[in-house]
Amino acid sequence: MVTMLQNIRIILINTFHPGNIGSAARAMKTMGLSDLCLVTPQRFPAADANSMAAGALDVLENARVFNDLDDAIADCSLVIGTSARSRSHSFSRPMLEAEQSADKLLTESSRNPVALVFGQETMGLTNSELEKCHFHTTIDANPDYPVLNVASAIQILCYEIFKASTKVEVTLNDSDDEPEYPLNKDLDRFYQHLEKTLTDIDFIIQQHPGLVMTRLRRLFNRARPEAKELNMLRGILNAAQKSAAKNG
Amino acid sequence: MVTMLQNIRIILINTFHPGNIGSAARAMKTMGLSDLCLVTPQRFPAADANSMAAGALDVLENARVFNDLDDAIADCSLVIGTSARSRSHSFSRPMLEAEQSADKLLTESSRNPVALVFGQETMGLTNSELEKCHFHTTIDANPDYPVLNVASAIQILCYEIFKASTKVEVTLNDSDDEPEYPLNKDLDRFYQHLEKTLTDIDFIIQQHPGLVMTRLRRLFNRARPEAKELNMLRGILNAAQKSAAKNG
Repeated sequence: MVTMLQNIRIILINTFHPGNIGSAARAMKTMGLSDLCLVTPQRFPAADANSMAAGALDVLENARVFNDLDDAIADCSLVIGTSARSRSHSFSRPMLEAEQSADKLLTESSRNPVALVFGQETMGLTNSELEKCHFHTTIDANPDYPVLNVASAIQILCYEIFKASTKVEVTLNDSDDEPEYPLNKDLDRFYQHLEKTLTDIDFIIQQHPGLVMTRLRRLFNRARPEAKELNMLRGILNAAQKSAAKNG
Repeated sequence: MVTMLQNIRIILINTFHPGNIGSAARAMKTMGLSDLCLVTPQRFPAADANSMAAGALDVLENARVFNDLDDAIADCSLVIGTSARSRSHSFSRPMLEAEQSADKLLTESSRNPVALVFGQETMGLTNSELEKCHFHTTIDANPDYPVLNVASAIQILCYEIFKASTKVEVTLNDSDDEPEYPLNKDLDRFYQHLEKTLTDIDFIIQQHPGLVMTRLRRLFNRARPEAKELNMLRGILNAAQKSAAKNG
């Protein structure tokens, strides 16, 4: 899995604010990506980039700078360009949802380097840059204000890539963290105690007793009380019974 | 659909950098959300917030400020708290993936306001804030560096909500099968009633009262009682109180 994520390259073209390069590095690292390529960034390295990268300075320090998009994608077998939905209408290139792009990138990355390309902050990718991409991708957004900043767009797409990678992975068991649960026979005893108490306090009488208990079982089943919690509940029932019994 | 998204509230607690409030507003608007609530923000309104909000100034201007999380969620029937995965291990609250949370919020929002809560930038939500949530949610991330900044986390979750909303489109019929849930203020009243009853039956006395209620809240939060079930529980409390009161 790690090798697949390592094969997924994020390319930023003509980035204007160095802070966005730092944010990109951080977004990438939170989602397990590390291969950052910059095509003609306005300013890099830069203090703003470092401060926005936070704990992802390593990604920034390993970033490669290119003069040309062609050089940055030379060894890639799949290149996906990001675009506002409206922009790409004029192209007959397939437009993918973020999730679909992530799946495609991940699948192909098991064999070859692949790239996801972001354009300049305000302009996005130029037509000639979009032409170099096999697919275009867009992020579903509010049609009245689909204006994600580039850092947000990178974060979302990296998140979809990471999510796709976890689907492939063998799921490790969390069971060690599981609390201790009561045995079923202890639960049965609790329900008997509960029914007896509800009778003692005159809650079960006029109502249909079966239905009350059915509802309560359903409620407690959903909560799935732990062993400790069940003990506490039994303590409460004892208190209610004692308090009712004083009337004799 | 629009009305459902309008019923989904984003709550930020103790936000330190006003810029993050602005980023939140922008992230929300890109994903069709508009109801921003701030609990004791460090500084608001603030110029930094306005500049980061970009075209989402309207969301910022309509943001409501509260002194207390309880007030911000009083009219909500579902509250989901965000948390780093490691943080919530000690809680036995169900931990949802971002996508699952989005589905739950969207479904319930067809009936009542619902809330997604984010804690302070570095500390996240406190234990007592997490206790007030029906579910905890986390964002799948690189286990070696899961450090998303709050603006990124908000962007991803709002994106999942918007994505869920595009899936639902006409299928409002799902929600018809969902039971009706009580509002948070009704739950609060139930917990007050419960505490009073436990005192009446002498269960709360020698034990630490706060801890008992914390445990019970956790248990009932997991079960997430439906409105009908809550009525039944209140009936049981009334019976227990009446039965205890006979002793004078």
